[in-house]
This record gives sequence, structure tokens and C-alpha cells, in this order.
Amino acid sequence: MEEGVPLVVPEINGEDAKLHHGLIANPNCSTIITMMALAPIAKLSPIIAVNASTYQAVSGAGMSGISELEDQIEAVRRQEEVVPHIFPAQIAYNCVAEIGSYNDNGYTTEEMKMQNEGRKILHLPDLKVTCTCVRVPVFRSHSISVTFVTKDQVTVEQAEAAIKDFNGDVLCTSHVPTPLETSDQDLVYVGRIRKDLCNDHGLVLWCCGDQIRKGAAANAVEIMEYLLK
Amino acid sequence: MEEGVPLVVPEINGEDAKLHHGLIANPNCSTIITMMALAPIAKLSPIIAVNASTYQAVSGAGMSGISELEDQIEAVRRQEEVVPHIFPAQIAYNCVAEIGSYNDNGYTTEEMKMQNEGRKILHLPDLKVTCTCVRVPVFRSHSISVTFVTKDQVTVEQAEAAIKDFNGDVLCTSHVPTPLETSDQDLVYVGRIRKDLCNDHGLVLWCCGDQIRKGAAANAVEIMEYLLK
Repeated sequence: MEEGVPLVVPEINGEDAKLHHGLIANPNCSTIITMMALAPIAKLSPIIAVNASTYQAVSGAGMSGISELEDQIEAVRRQEEVVPHIFPAQIAYNCVAEIGSYNDNGYTTEEMKMQNEGRKILHLPDLKVTCTCVRVPVFRSHSISVTFVTKDQVTVEQAEAAIKDFNGDVLCTSHVPTPLETSDQDLVYVGRIRKDLCNDHGLVLWCCGDQIRKGAAANAVEIMEYLLK
Repeated sequence: MEEGVPLVVPEINGEDAKLHHGLIANPNCSTIITMMALAPIAKLSPIIAVNASTYQAVSGAGMSGISELEDQIEAVRRQEEVVPHIFPAQIAYNCVAEIGSYNDNGYTTEEMKMQNEGRKILHLPDLKVTCTCVRVPVFRSHSISVTFVTKDQVTVEQAEAAIKDFNGDVLCTSHVPTPLETSDQDLVYVGRIRKDLCNDHGLVLWCCGDQIRKGAAANAVEIMEYLLK
């Protein structure tokens, strides 16, 4: 991507859309869902580090990803051989921890986007992110298991209140959000917020959002709406 | 569980089986897979902290878990209503980040086992573990995305060599292990070993193992074999 092109999520860094004349980029789909969960907390305290494991839907690879899961489920039902085309291994009844190509550091391009794009979206140039991206047999909506460390201590109650008040997020306290229930809508659902047992300045959460809607198309429309305001 | 009853994984702490007269416990299934990956590294340096996100197969809930996934996949195919019985939400084409009941700290019983049992198995009473347990639509074999911090720095090469030499583990360097390929056998497959980008003393890995075999039945047989040696 061209240097200096802003990556914009309107609810987080909408003003950035005005920084560059001509090009604005839509961030990576699992990054955008995670950053929607972290943005309200980053307003309370800078976030220093993020550890994320993703549970990514097949539609992240487009229509052909959806067909591949459908076809493989049917092949298993008929006890026929399953031959992967889109994903590096069978995705039906399986998990594939390999999305994108590999960098020299052993991380995939998809995993490094969580750090590189996250830094731009949250305006935290020193943010450190360790990410493992995993494809799961889900049609729509990415889910992310996130642990993060804040500079100043943030309590669970403060984090919940910030997420509850954040435009575009839904705080879940009485149930655990799932990718299925968050499919085909624009909001990011955040739940299971609790203290990190390894770090006094750490918190843990689980978030889900439709990466086709919020992760791509809807976000692009929202950027345009923001610019036309 | 009775106080003092050893939790035994023969390859890791087989000698513990001789500590208690009468009772020996088989550890939790996702814990055992994770500890099989971490044990060889814990021999190089004490492990201080672990951050784990699990991708757990439905068979962790027994035969009824398997039937539930099969029935739901069929119901979706017939466009019939899906009613969850065993899992808290639909598991077909979904991820459910809720396994076990909740402790006051917001973690589930399943998640706390990773710390409480991990401490006993690795003989690391101060080990801190933050865990998120997630059920995925996979029939057999649990997978775990693990980040861990060691007291002394361990390189990727050292970690790989230790895992390669460890009885019961398979080191994967040229492909990424999946739950499907590790089903119905007793070994734990470990891959994607790389540096934690958030911590100089941290490493990241992905491991898969059949929790019915290594995570339960086979381990129980191996304990007995160990005692009869």
C-alpha cells in the first residue's frame, strides 16, 4: 500500500480520511473487528501490547471460500475425497492456522496486519502485536480472542463502560457473542471482558463481527458518509 | 479433586504417578495437549506465563457432542431450525467461547484448569496462565494457540530442537498441523514456533492433539504402563 495512505475506521479515526487527497484504505478485516473492540479502551489509556488469536470465517477468502466449505461438508457427507483448492488444508471440520504468505519472522502477512494497521488506526506507532490467524469452518463473521496490556491500569468495569458507550460496539455481559449471531449486521460484539491473570495491566476479551459488512463493504460506505458529513 | 492427587502425563511427570497410593488423575484434555508442547521447553528454562486460546473439538463433550454437531449440520442442510442441547449455542458453522461454568474471576472452570493443572504437571507452582477456551465445529483433536514467556531466553531453534527430541511430540516445520490430521493417534503435533513480538523472552506456537486419545484414554493406559515398568 502507498505510504501515507490512511487506514480508516470511521468510529475510531474518521478524521484521518481527510489527511490524504485521493486514496483512503479500508483496513484488514480481522484487524478492523479487533480495533473496534480496543479503540474505546485506548481512549482510557494507551495500549502497549496485544496478543490475538483469530477464528476467521471462510468468507474472508471471498465467495470461493464459502463454496469450498459448502462443497467439502457435502463431500464428507457423501464420504467422498476432499481436495482443498482455496485453503491450504481441508476446512470442513478443521482449523487451519495459516492465512496469507509468510514473512521472514515466521508470521503471515495477515498476522502482521494486526500490528501494522492497528498502529495506524489507533494512532499508537509503538504498539506491539503478536497474532495467530486461524481459519475455522464458519461462513461469516470473524471472532478474535484478545489479551492486551494498557499503560495505565484499566479495570474490567471501566473497559465495559467504555465499550458500552462506543458507537459501533455492543457490550455483551449476560451472554457470549458468537460469529453466527453477529453475521449480516454492522456492529462488533464484545464480551467476556476479564483481568489478564499474567499481567496486572492486562485485560482479556472476545469479540465477533461480520467481516464482510463491518470488515469491508459497510466500513467503506461509512468512510464515504463520514467524508460527506 | 482430592488434594495431593498427582495429575500425570507419563512423558512429562511420570514419576509423580508413584507419589500417591491409590489415586492418580488424568489431566484435563486441552491442558494435556498444551503441556505436551510446553514440557520440552520448560526443561530449557522455567516457564513464567502462558497465554492460550483453544480450538476445542466437540468430542471433548463426549459422544453427545459429536451427535450434536452431526445433527446440526444436517439441520442446516435441510434448512430446519437448530436447537442447541449440549453446547450453549449452535456449534455447526459457529464458535462458542464458553466451556464449563464460570468462576468469580470471569474465567471458566475449563480455562482455570490450564493454570491449576499446568502448575502440577510442569512442577511450576507459580506459573501464571491466561486462557480462553473456545468450542469449534471440529469432531476430534483440540488445537491451541499458545504464547509463553520463559525465565531465560529460549531461541526458536532451541525450542524446535527440544520439541523434536521429546517423546510424544512431533515437530512440524514444513507444514502447519491441523486437528484433522492429528485425529485418532497419540502424538501431539507442534508447529509455527516463532518469537513473541511483544516480549523478548516470549515464544509462540500452535499445537494439535487428539484429546480422546492422548487427552484421555491413551494417557490413562500410558500411566498404567509407566507404573508397571
